[in-house]
Parts: sequence; C-alpha cells; structure tokens
Amino acid sequence: MATKRNPAQDLAALTACEAARRIAEGALTSSELVAACLDIIDAQEAEVQAWAFLDRDRAMLEAQERDRRRQRGLPLGPLHGVPVGVKDIIDVKGMPTGNGTPIDEGRRPFADATVIRRLREAGAVILGKTVTTELAYYHPGKTHNPHDPARTPGGSSSGSAAAVAAGMVPLALGSQTNGSVIRPASYCGVVGFKPTFGAVPRTGVLTLAPSLDQLGVFARSIEDATLVEWLMGADGQDLDASENPGPLTATMLAEPPVTPALAVVKTPFWERADAATRDAFGELAPALGEAADEVELPEVFGRGVGWLGGVMAAEMARNLGHYVDRAPEQVSEALRQLIGDGRAMRAPDYLAARDMQRVLRDALDPLFQRFDVIVTPAATGEAPVGLESTGDPTFCSLWTFCGLPALSLPLLTGPSGMPVGVQLVAPRGQDARLLRTARWLVRTLSQEADA
Amino acid sequence: MATKRNPAQDLAALTACEAARRIAEGALTSSELVAACLDIIDAQEAEVQAWAFLDRDRAMLEAQERDRRRQRGLPLGPLHGVPVGVKDIIDVKGMPTGNGTPIDEGRRPFADATVIRRLREAGAVILGKTVTTELAYYHPGKTHNPHDPARTPGGSSSGSAAAVAAGMVPLALGSQTNGSVIRPASYCGVVGFKPTFGAVPRTGVLTLAPSLDQLGVFARSIEDATLVEWLMGADGQDLDASENPGPLTATMLAEPPVTPALAVVKTPFWERADAATRDAFGELAPALGEAADEVELPEVFGRGVGWLGGVMAAEMARNLGHYVDRAPEQVSEALRQLIGDGRAMRAPDYLAARDMQRVLRDALDPLFQRFDVIVTPAATGEAPVGLESTGDPTFCSLWTFCGLPALSLPLLTGPSGMPVGVQLVAPRGQDARLLRTARWLVRTLSQEADA
Repeated sequence: MATKRNPAQDLAALTACEAARRIAEGALTSSELVAACLDIIDAQEAEVQAWAFLDRDRAMLEAQERDRRRQRGLPLGPLHGVPVGVKDIIDVKGMPTGNGTPIDEGRRPFADATVIRRLREAGAVILGKTVTTELAYYHPGKTHNPHDPARTPGGSSSGSAAAVAAGMVPLALGSQTNGSVIRPASYCGVVGFKPTFGAVPRTGVLTLAPSLDQLGVFARSIEDATLVEWLMGADGQDLDASENPGPLTATMLAEPPVTPALAVVKTPFWERADAATRDAFGELAPALGEAADEVELPEVFGRGVGWLGGVMAAEMARNLGHYVDRAPEQVSEALRQLIGDGRAMRAPDYLAARDMQRVLRDALDPLFQRFDVIVTPAATGEAPVGLESTGDPTFCSLWTFCGLPALSLPLLTGPSGMPVGVQLVAPRGQDARLLRTARWLVRTLSQEADA
Repeated sequence: MATKRNPAQDLAALTACEAARRIAEGALTSSELVAACLDIIDAQEAEVQAWAFLDRDRAMLEAQERDRRRQRGLPLGPLHGVPVGVKDIIDVKGMPTGNGTPIDEGRRPFADATVIRRLREAGAVILGKTVTTELAYYHPGKTHNPHDPARTPGGSSSGSAAAVAAGMVPLALGSQTNGSVIRPASYCGVVGFKPTFGAVPRTGVLTLAPSLDQLGVFARSIEDATLVEWLMGADGQDLDASENPGPLTATMLAEPPVTPALAVVKTPFWERADAATRDAFGELAPALGEAADEVELPEVFGRGVGWLGGVMAAEMARNLGHYVDRAPEQVSEALRQLIGDGRAMRAPDYLAARDMQRVLRDALDPLFQRFDVIVTPAATGEAPVGLESTGDPTFCSLWTFCGLPALSLPLLTGPSGMPVGVQLVAPRGQDARLLRTARWLVRTLSQEADA
C-alpha cells in the first residue's frame, strides 16, 4: 500500500464529512468523487469482490443530478453528493436486491427502504449494493479481505466493510443480528458503528430476527460513523424503531467534561480470544492509567450467547424458513441447520430467552453507573485465513442481545499485520456519549504512542 | 329486586362519580359510603361470594383518613373517599393476593401495583380483593351471579363483576387476557371497559400472557368506567404500557359532532351466539336506522381465536408453568392442559401467531375508515346455568388479540330475564371516542324505547 497514490486514490480517501464539505463549498463535484470511487473499484474489484450490484452509468447520472442541484443553489443535505454502499439485504428501488441467495437473484424491490429514503434526502448517491453472506447469516459471499485476499472480510456485511476498507466508497450500510457490523469492521480495519437497538428503522430490510436485527454503518472516521444520526427516528412502520438517541454530532465533537471512565471487560468468553488479542487487552488498562479499570461481568452473562442463539434460531426459522421450504437445495447446510434448530425450539424456551434480554441489560446498570463505556475486543483476533468461514462473532453477541450501541475502532494490529478492532459499548440511548468517548480514546492512545 | 330499599342500598347504589362529588361537597362522608357498602356485603356475600379478602376495620380506617383529609382542606383526588374492589391478581401492599390458587394462599406482596398506587393517589379506598378464577384462567372461583346464584358470573374477573352488580362497591378492577372483563360484565349486567392494549401499566399484576394481558374496570355507568383514565400512562416498568389515549372525560361527555357510524359485526363465530342473542342483534341495525350497517369481517378473522389461543398457551406456559411444576396436584386439569399445550408449541408457530396480531389489526383499517365503532355481542348469550364453567369468551377474543379498546353495555335482556351485554369496539387509542359513542348509543336506544 506504499505505492504512489494517484488522484483518484486521494479523492476516494476523503472522509464522507470532508467530501460533503468540499462539495458544498464547490471545491469538488459529486461527479469527480463518484468517478474516483469507480476508478478504485475498477482497480480493486477483481481482487476484493465487494459488490453485488453496481451500475456505473446510473451512479454517474445521480452524481450529475446532485451537481446540478448545487449549481441551482438549492439547499443541500449533510451527505450531498457523497456515494454510499448498501448491503444487499436493504431494498433500493430499481436495483436488484438479492439478499445473498440465488433464490432472490434479480429480485427488484418496488420501494426504497426507510434508510435509503433518508440517505437520498441527505443528498447521498447510492453507489451500489454490497455483498452479504447468504441471507445475512454465516454462509460466505465472494468478498475477500482487502488487507489480505486469502482472508475473510468477516460477515455478514462483508462487502460493505471491504468496500470502505479498500477505498471504494467512504461510507456503507450494514446490519447486525449477532456480530455482522462490528466483526467485519474489525477484520477490515475500518470504523463500524451499530447504534442502540430501535434507533434506525428496518422497514425495507430483510428480516432475520426482529428482536435483534439492527442497522449500522462502516466508515473511515468516527465523524463519518456519526452520520448514522440522519437515519435515526421512528418511521411509523418499524414498530420497534421508537428510540432516537440523536442528534449525535454536537456531543461527539465536544470534549468530555471529565475524563471518561472505561471498563475493560474480558467477558466470560476470554479463552476464545487469541493470545495476541489477550496480550493487547492485558496492556490496555495499564496504558490508560486511571481512566480504565478491568471489570468482570456477573456469571450469568456466560449464558448470553446461548440465549441470543436461541432467539436468532427461532425468529429466523419464522422469517426465513420459507426459503428452505421453497428451494432446499439452494440453501446452505449451515442455514438449513439453523432453521431446523429454530423449528424444533419450544415457544416457552424462546420466551425465556427473550426475557433474558432485559435481565442482562438491567444487570449492567451497576457497571454503567461507574463507567461511561465498556472496552472489549471486537473479534477474537485477526481475520482468519480462508474464505469458507466469516469468523467468530462471540465478542459481539452480548451487546447485540442487550440492544446496546457498539463501535469498533481499528486501533490494534495483529501478529500478521492485520487490523484488530477495539470495541466500545455504551448503555442504550447513550450513542452520542459513546462516540465522544471513542474520539477521546483515539486521541489519548495516540498521545501515549507519541510519548 | 323490587323490595323497599334501605338507606345503605341508596348510598351504595350511587355511581362512583356521584359519590366522589358528594364527598367533595361535604354532603356525604367516605365513612358513610364505605359503611353502606359493607352493609350490602354483609347482606349479600353469603349468596354472591365476590370477595377473596375483606378487612372491614381496615377499610373503615382508610375511609376515616380520607374524611380527615377533606376536613383539613387538603386537595382531593377524583376518587376521594370512593371504595374500589380489586381483582385478586393485582398486588395490594398489606393484603393477601392469592391469584386464585391455593399455591399462593396467604401471599402478601411488598408493594402496591402501579394501578393501586394511582388509585390511592386519586383518593380511592381499597375495599378488598375480589375473587378471580384460578390464575385468571378458566377454573372457576366461588362467586355466584348476583342476578341468579345458580349461574356463573363469568370469569376470570368474577368477583369484581359480581360485586359491582350486587351493589357492594361502585367500581372494581379486573383484567382481560381473552374475555375476562367484557364477558363477566355482560353476564352480571354492568358496564365493563377494557382500554387499548398498553394504556394501563400491569406492573404488580400477575403476568399471564404479556402480549394480551390488559387491565380494565367494572362500573355502573359509562362515566364511572371513564375513571380508568386515572390509571393510564407509562410507569417506566411495564415496557408495553406506552400508550396513553387519555384524558377521556371531556370527550366522553361531549356530543358527537356528527351522528356516529356503527358497524354491526356478527363475526365468523355467529353460530356460537344463542338464538335470542342472534335475534336481538338482527333487530339492532334496523333499530338504529342510518347510523348502523351490518358489516362482514374478512374471512381471515375466523382464525383469530386460534391464534389468540396459541399466544395465550405459549406465554402462559412460560409465565405460569412453574405452578404446575411446583404443585401439580393443586392445579386444575384445564390449566395443566393449557400449560402442556403451550409447552408443546414450537417457537416459529408462536411467532407466526404473534405477527397476526398486527395483520388482523391492519385488516380492520378499511372498516374503521367508514365506522366509528364496531357493535357486536359481548357474550354468546345469558350467563350459563352452573358454576363449573365461566362461559364462552369467543366474542371477546378478536378484539383482545388486536389490542383494541372494548366496552360492554348492559342493554339487552335474555329469555330468562338475565342481562346480555352489547360490546362496542374502537380502533387503538380511540378510547375517548368509544366512550362518547357509547353514551350516544344508550341515549338513542332509550329514545327508541320511549317512542
């Protein structure tokens, strides 16, 4: 990556916020930016394979429309002219939305998902659809990790993470039902942000497990991840989307009034982390001095991954079982197995697991009375070699299960030189404080490194 | 019932609103009113058996405290000094709350349920606990129908309905998971009101099926039923209680701006209604002239009762299964059977039934665009003879399943001279309009009768 950068690389390397600023000022056109992104895609896509659908002409036409709008002096949204990648389980009108399964190949939705409508209102250019694993579960798509094509980009939002990491697009949408934003962000070395459950409406997005499903973003900076605030708030259709922790930007940009208090949490699954990750976290608390304390979770959290698994299996059996029934030969063994497990589950066991979402969330109250955020690994370590698996989501499961906002920051480097994410987790609705603490942490660690 | 009334009967026959007015004016004391109610109870309880717990001294002490408060000129709540009966699945601090099962005999809760706290804030005197069926399911308690002791009062809120009907108390709380407010109100000839699902918090109330459970009231007038508005609104603990359709009184008392439009709905279960009820409803639409039209529900509603049954079984298995495990010999066969059914149910089938709550509710939208309320039987007919069953809740199931506000008005008389209720149903959140339409209907029908 140390080769001389060409002008397209320079443009495509802009953060979404910086690009939007330049476009608004007239220092850059949307057409130039989109063309630069398409150049990078042309150069990298054969290796990375991040895209499920891309219509270059259409993207350029949209960019030109944005440019005309600016020339006419019309009001511009916060993402005016900025290209965005969209995970291929999110409906975009007029683009095929294939959900990562041959069964839905060529499916063209009649309407935009709520988040797409809001992206367009903010002025974004929908660049194309990014590769998802099969129905956003574990069976991998075609995408490779841009840092090492022999490795998985993680899943299920594989293409979105890889596209942002490869410089193909500054911002991309993903979704997380277990660890599908935070894990690929960690593997690909980008910022991943999954807001509080219920903050972003899921209308027009493939339903896996409605008690867990949440949309999120991949970005190259914390500021860019904060743009998710434009997607938040009830839409009158997704009845679970009643939370709105925004606006986020003003708080994110502010200085913390006092030094944040960080709880370094190893979780009951610590032995799943590889040695290098365990070492790095062992050094984190001391490096942060008085700001951080190591905290052990109550024993009951050890069962959280199992409960999440039960809720996922039952709800996915309800919502995706028809794929297995319609075309069993086109469904992966892993998904067939999950649907079978979910169909065998008894309703009261499912309901017991659902009740535990609140129990575990409440059990974190004492911790969050002392600490602003939890600091924990985003993944067990570097992206595994091989494309047959998308890696282990365990370090995401508890926070997804509890509906908490989570952020992955590309702060660590593994023994093979691959990125490893540090995950920050905050209480429900504290998304703005999470982002502010993340900025503080990045600054503090870089000062440590300089000292 | 045509015998000469004694002074206690006159006082105890006051509506709650009228009693509260007289107490506020100083024309009546709470002590006099509570003493009058206790007199009626003394005279009737041997036959009716509406009460699970009654502490006469404590009730009189509470009444005297209310009288002192008034004498001191302190602000008075809307129910100041008015006695209220409370179904014995609702926790009242310091009173045994037995949930209608010997397993919980003598159980004394440490805290008031949210609705009890709100009743006390409104100035009410908690008179005692009224008989419920076993765990608010079908196995009957000891209560008899005050209009004919050989007949059931209905269930599960048997004691609350019977106590209000017998003149023992002007107002009583009940709950409905299927037909436990509307049906006993119909059988006992009182007004029963179950507000929109989510309007009244259930904190401190026995949980049967949280997707269906809703509190309601028994009263002798529509005005009194409207007092439930003081119980509405989120309490921060029952996360399903986020609706607040109140305030209700001003709208309820107003004239409808135009003649209400009533949809007379026979439901797909019409053959379950007895001949007299079918005849009475056959005459209702013509009697109301242009205000009413007979409307047929889409065929899919025929499956609603089954879906409600599935949701009830699964959720009650989750929440009440421990009673069967702890003391199977103290649990009725009917409840054991239900818990067994719920435990056998598969999670995806449960989730499918849950999804149908919204599907059926949305399927009523076109009807409610043309009509203000649905008019339908509150029960299949008169209260059945015998105490071994509490009757058939089928005519309540659809509306409970959809979470709609429902009201039973004692407007009909069956072939044996027993009361039969007319049920009014409105869209979610339209509780105030439901009550206003109910007043209009009562007035219109009584003018019909005079003409």
